[in-house]
Amino acid sequence: MKRKELLLRSSLWMQEAENSPVVMSSRIRLARNLENVPFPHSLSAERSEQVARIIAQVLDSVDVEGDRLTYLPLTELSPIELQVLIEKHLISADLANAKRERGVALTHDHRVAIMVNEEDHLRMQVLLPGDQLREAYRLADSLDDGIEERLDFAYREAQGYLTACPTNVGTGMRASVMVHLPALVMTNQVQHLLGTLTHLGLAVRGLYGEGSQALGHLFQVSNQITLGKSEEDIIAHLEAVTGQIVGMELQARENLLQQARLVLEDKVWRARGMLQNARLLSSADAMLYLSQDRLGTDLGILPKSGQTFAELLVDSNQGCLQYKLNRELDSQQRDEQRANQIRAAFAAANGR
Amino acid sequence: MKRKELLLRSSLWMQEAENSPVVMSSRIRLARNLENVPFPHSLSAERSEQVARIIAQVLDSVDVEGDRLTYLPLTELSPIELQVLIEKHLISADLANAKRERGVALTHDHRVAIMVNEEDHLRMQVLLPGDQLREAYRLADSLDDGIEERLDFAYREAQGYLTACPTNVGTGMRASVMVHLPALVMTNQVQHLLGTLTHLGLAVRGLYGEGSQALGHLFQVSNQITLGKSEEDIIAHLEAVTGQIVGMELQARENLLQQARLVLEDKVWRARGMLQNARLLSSADAMLYLSQDRLGTDLGILPKSGQTFAELLVDSNQGCLQYKLNRELDSQQRDEQRANQIRAAFAAANGR
Repeated sequence: MKRKELLLRSSLWMQEAENSPVVMSSRIRLARNLENVPFPHSLSAERSEQVARIIAQVLDSVDVEGDRLTYLPLTELSPIELQVLIEKHLISADLANAKRERGVALTHDHRVAIMVNEEDHLRMQVLLPGDQLREAYRLADSLDDGIEERLDFAYREAQGYLTACPTNVGTGMRASVMVHLPALVMTNQVQHLLGTLTHLGLAVRGLYGEGSQALGHLFQVSNQITLGKSEEDIIAHLEAVTGQIVGMELQARENLLQQARLVLEDKVWRARGMLQNARLLSSADAMLYLSQDRLGTDLGILPKSGQTFAELLVDSNQGCLQYKLNRELDSQQRDEQRANQIRAAFAAANGR
Repeated sequence: MKRKELLLRSSLWMQEAENSPVVMSSRIRLARNLENVPFPHSLSAERSEQVARIIAQVLDSVDVEGDRLTYLPLTELSPIELQVLIEKHLISADLANAKRERGVALTHDHRVAIMVNEEDHLRMQVLLPGDQLREAYRLADSLDDGIEERLDFAYREAQGYLTACPTNVGTGMRASVMVHLPALVMTNQVQHLLGTLTHLGLAVRGLYGEGSQALGHLFQVSNQITLGKSEEDIIAHLEAVTGQIVGMELQARENLLQQARLVLEDKVWRARGMLQNARLLSSADAMLYLSQDRLGTDLGILPKSGQTFAELLVDSNQGCLQYKLNRELDSQQRDEQRANQIRAAFAAANGR
């Protein structure tokens, strides 16, 4: 598979999962480090190359339930390609910006993405559509076992897996779900809800990190504690809280339908009208309208469009836009291309 | 013709005139009073009935170029019917609110509307689509002659026609054009332009009077002076100024196309998207989007809708909405019906 094809294809997590109108995706990330090798930030250039080479060789031969990994050394990628990987949630901005030898190994459907020489030697991510934390963990665990057969991970009986940052010591696991909460945002309940989550040992971030909470009405909820809890505990806790969040969002939607159906219908139809007609769409406008449109589609008010909410959101980011068109775009050109692309996706969905 | 049919039908002035993208309509109004009869505000109830009856009898038999007038005594009309007549520019709010016996005589296409016992005994209006001041005057003058054959108008050699308010003495004529100036509004030039008009002896008002200037980007420009000038002078002056306004608006449109085509296209397509998709439309929103949509249609950016700008504007007023549906509507119901009606009108115009 050519690199451009691999990067541009729709990631598995972007598919709409059946019966999961609120939980968009589920993610498990395991941090692992090689025994007797300094953490990446302490490695010399030469040593980081050596470490990346060793790991890449192992990853090249790992079987992921019949699928293979493709290893991409980041030094070979253009800034726009790095941007695309970040926008698709396949690498972190930290990995993109690091100077040392580093890379990412991907399955063709992006459900597995393993960062090499990020903060830790390996960060294995499994990212699935919908509410599938346990399936994601099952796959991550099996992947972890397969790799551990070939690499010696730093592990201490008392502490568990060693990691560069103490917040990851123990299981080395971060579990997270991405939830779509438009009705809780519309009814001004979301800030209070999210505030309470931090008291439960959970972190909340926006679609693209801390500063982007409102964008697309999407929120990532993840565990903050990795030490002294089993993987099972972490997942059970996050699942329970997620279940409550889902319940609140669905209740808020029901309340809107009961108490303000026409206002709600007006809002989602107007969003559809903007997506089908605008000739310039800023990123913030696009995310707002796409979110409202997905709410309308979920509630059966709007006909479905040709692409999923996540695909439309991700593809309208500037990296993806420019990579697809194969040229640099200034701000207005991006707004124009974003509008064109979204309009094309909605042209099939009859807006009347 | 039944009264409801007569009131609801599309007025001639609401048709789009060929080659007149800026001047929406042209209007001539002549104020006339009966000799030796006090002005209407001084008439007793009994006397006002008598005056109205005399005038109505004459109007009933007047020929308007092959068409006849239908006289409607306002005391027979419901408040909503009065509202409809105001919204269609066929009577003034003052006439609707007056307590004395009063009426209006209409041709079937509304191009002639003669108010009886408004401020003056007769106010004859000719209202035509597009830039047709001279044709409107020709028709008003011929109508005036026809009526003057049967009624004795108060006229003094030195002053001209006598009127209740001194500002109308002389010709008793008010000439006005309704201009659509969206590009001058968008480019913030309209306030300065309109300010200069008052120095030229012209008055500027919005679509429905002084307080409504911004609505629909429509402005009525009329002469303020009636005394000491001939009808020809008044019309020539207004025509010259109108020509300049038209030139400025067209130039502003051209500049927008040259310098900000994409921003302009985005704006008019978004307006179309709102009109085709909204489920609730306030009157102000409707007028804004309809105005932007007409600009887009005039510039060939948008396909035409099934109804004209003026029809859509007038029909979405609350009187017309309620009269057509034959029931009272609260504020949200009006917004809903307005959105439904406008959506239906645009359903035929393909928005893609």
